[in-house]
Amino acid sequence: MKAEMIAVGTEILLGDIVNTNAQMISLGLDELGIDLFYQTVVGDNPERLREVLDIARRRSDLIITTGGLGPTLDDLTRETIAEAFGKTLVLHKPSLRRITAFFDQIGKDMTQNNVKQAMLPAGCKVLDNDWGTAPGCVFTADGVHVMMLPGPPKECTPMFRTAGMAYLSQLAGGVIVSRRIRIFGMGESAMEDRLHTLMATSTNPTLAPYAKDGECMVRVTAKAHSVQEAQQLLEPAVQQVCDKLGDAVYGVDVDSMEHAVAKLLTEKGLTLSVAESCTGGLLSKRITDVPGASLFYKGGACTYCNEIKQKILGVKQETLEQFTAVSSQTAREMALGIAAVYGTDLGIGITGYAGPDDGEDGTPAGTIYIGISYQGKAQVRRILSPRGRDRARWDAANHALDMILRVAQGRGLV
Amino acid sequence: MKAEMIAVGTEILLGDIVNTNAQMISLGLDELGIDLFYQTVVGDNPERLREVLDIARRRSDLIITTGGLGPTLDDLTRETIAEAFGKTLVLHKPSLRRITAFFDQIGKDMTQNNVKQAMLPAGCKVLDNDWGTAPGCVFTADGVHVMMLPGPPKECTPMFRTAGMAYLSQLAGGVIVSRRIRIFGMGESAMEDRLHTLMATSTNPTLAPYAKDGECMVRVTAKAHSVQEAQQLLEPAVQQVCDKLGDAVYGVDVDSMEHAVAKLLTEKGLTLSVAESCTGGLLSKRITDVPGASLFYKGGACTYCNEIKQKILGVKQETLEQFTAVSSQTAREMALGIAAVYGTDLGIGITGYAGPDDGEDGTPAGTIYIGISYQGKAQVRRILSPRGRDRARWDAANHALDMILRVAQGRGLV
Repeated sequence: MKAEMIAVGTEILLGDIVNTNAQMISLGLDELGIDLFYQTVVGDNPERLREVLDIARRRSDLIITTGGLGPTLDDLTRETIAEAFGKTLVLHKPSLRRITAFFDQIGKDMTQNNVKQAMLPAGCKVLDNDWGTAPGCVFTADGVHVMMLPGPPKECTPMFRTAGMAYLSQLAGGVIVSRRIRIFGMGESAMEDRLHTLMATSTNPTLAPYAKDGECMVRVTAKAHSVQEAQQLLEPAVQQVCDKLGDAVYGVDVDSMEHAVAKLLTEKGLTLSVAESCTGGLLSKRITDVPGASLFYKGGACTYCNEIKQKILGVKQETLEQFTAVSSQTAREMALGIAAVYGTDLGIGITGYAGPDDGEDGTPAGTIYIGISYQGKAQVRRILSPRGRDRARWDAANHALDMILRVAQGRGLV
Repeated sequence: MKAEMIAVGTEILLGDIVNTNAQMISLGLDELGIDLFYQTVVGDNPERLREVLDIARRRSDLIITTGGLGPTLDDLTRETIAEAFGKTLVLHKPSLRRITAFFDQIGKDMTQNNVKQAMLPAGCKVLDNDWGTAPGCVFTADGVHVMMLPGPPKECTPMFRTAGMAYLSQLAGGVIVSRRIRIFGMGESAMEDRLHTLMATSTNPTLAPYAKDGECMVRVTAKAHSVQEAQQLLEPAVQQVCDKLGDAVYGVDVDSMEHAVAKLLTEKGLTLSVAESCTGGLLSKRITDVPGASLFYKGGACTYCNEIKQKILGVKQETLEQFTAVSSQTAREMALGIAAVYGTDLGIGITGYAGPDDGEDGTPAGTIYIGISYQGKAQVRRILSPRGRDRARWDAANHALDMILRVAQGRGLV
């Protein structure tokens, strides 16, 4: 099956936003074994969209569009596609009820222009939108499958990953099952080096390495006639990858380091609190991204100035004077202090220069100290993350999560 | 002039990398006032690239390609384009000398396949690559301008921003200038309702509405012969939009609500601290996303359990017992408590059920109370954000930032 994607949105052509849906859908199609040959972006213009659709239907079996399903005047994807494929738009009452209920729930009046979001091609399969108002849909016409998804990534991503991919996997024949091995503390090239032979010789399952946001992932994907058969193919391959990567593997089929931390601390019955300076609350935010974090997480303190580090955490004045706020000593006292004040088994203390400016003493931006305390003892790791403020803060939080996993597993830091 | 972009690279279609060059070039063309109507991605496949080029030359005056200029077998852009436009590739000796010198400099032998990077269409203008080996070029054939750039963003970006844009600005004539009006507290459909007539009757400047992450934006764009002339066209249009949207406008040409807060509090010399329960540190993280936040932000406390709300913020036990932790009363005491403990002018207290679960008493997930204290007085806003945990937390932080802006501006809450 030959697929192509069409993103509809003048805001992409103007450079206001990056077309991240393209990568998300590309990865999903790759998992499903569907060949994607073209990605096109076109503006909110019915003539040009029509022309792009006419090109796509001649060369592809599957067209996936994103964007242009909203309530406003320039949202024209639904109407243009229906016309191009000779489909009538009809009111899909369940979708209208969902949209109406949504406005009721948030206590706002629904303006009339929202109704058009529930007008869908006759006979289509509706893809419910649990993350926004505009439903998606998929239909077949003249042998071409057409799937429409909304533009906002927070809606498009979950809709495609659930209902969209489920529909496509039926078209593709057979099943595809993937497992994800997650790695922290080993770079992409080192990882590929260790997996090189395995990757070159594996055909089913296949191995695909990814690097993102300071960590790595290997996706192992098997094609088979049944889920059970796929699982049997996957099992030994996953084991081989884990053996080759050793200590750097922090989880299989876990969503993130914070999910791994939540699972481990809940299982072990350990409690946690965190003190943050340069990360400003990011670590606390990531920990509480996981539902149920209250089972192990008592809370945190963002101590963004020295007086608060002293007052809330009990960091000593002489420590701040002798070593400065950005030092191993301060990180250590922050970690010990927060655990004592919040009464938790584990405590984290993070202090550093996130950037863009270097420290006044010339310490380069990206220098960050991360302390961890456990049962009254503390250890500190120093990192240098020179790729900008956001990345430095993210990396510091990653290291803190890695340290929590290592200490809670009794592995010790490296 | 109608422009379109073609990115050549199977790695984009597989989802391995994001086509960030697309945004970079889109922004540059927008600055130059050149209309970009299409972006296409095609794999390293000469037949499909040829077909895409044939479509592009029929509908566009300017084609910009990225990728496929390297030394390896699958780098086929140069050869395919030359063939499509009837151009002969000839050795460009200065480029070959640059490539040879590059290898000398890094102390490696130049393999023979690197020579083909210096084979360029006869009569083209060469765009030197000071950041890698493959030069770019631009030529005109049959009235179509064709520009080829290398794929790696670290080479493509500086080459396009310097030599590429200099070449194009000669072709374009005229400029485009945009201004962004940012809105919170009014939905996309309500916004469009107010702007409907203005949008329908505006041709220069044009108005384009966007909605993202719980807020809205209107981009006003003028075309003119000079930047000054464009600014003159923009001024009254921006004013009209602001008049129609009134109180919901929180800034013009500001990057985000947190940037607006940082600017306002720094100007006013007001200090801030925040106490977070369900948002878990997100608000603190967003405030400290802005470099220089330490000028007004003292820090925060994530109080993720009742005992810490009492211990750190001084929330009264009877308040928690009588009204529960998720109540207007608790939010109020959190806001007053954090401001008192951290010694700040403004304090925020956020408590609610972020989800996925409802409260034990049946309070629906997404119910969140946000308190703000200023000079010892507090006010509380209650919101209901039913679109999942991440969105509920994001919305609560948005409302907190809105409340800070309103109180610090002396506008009062709505």
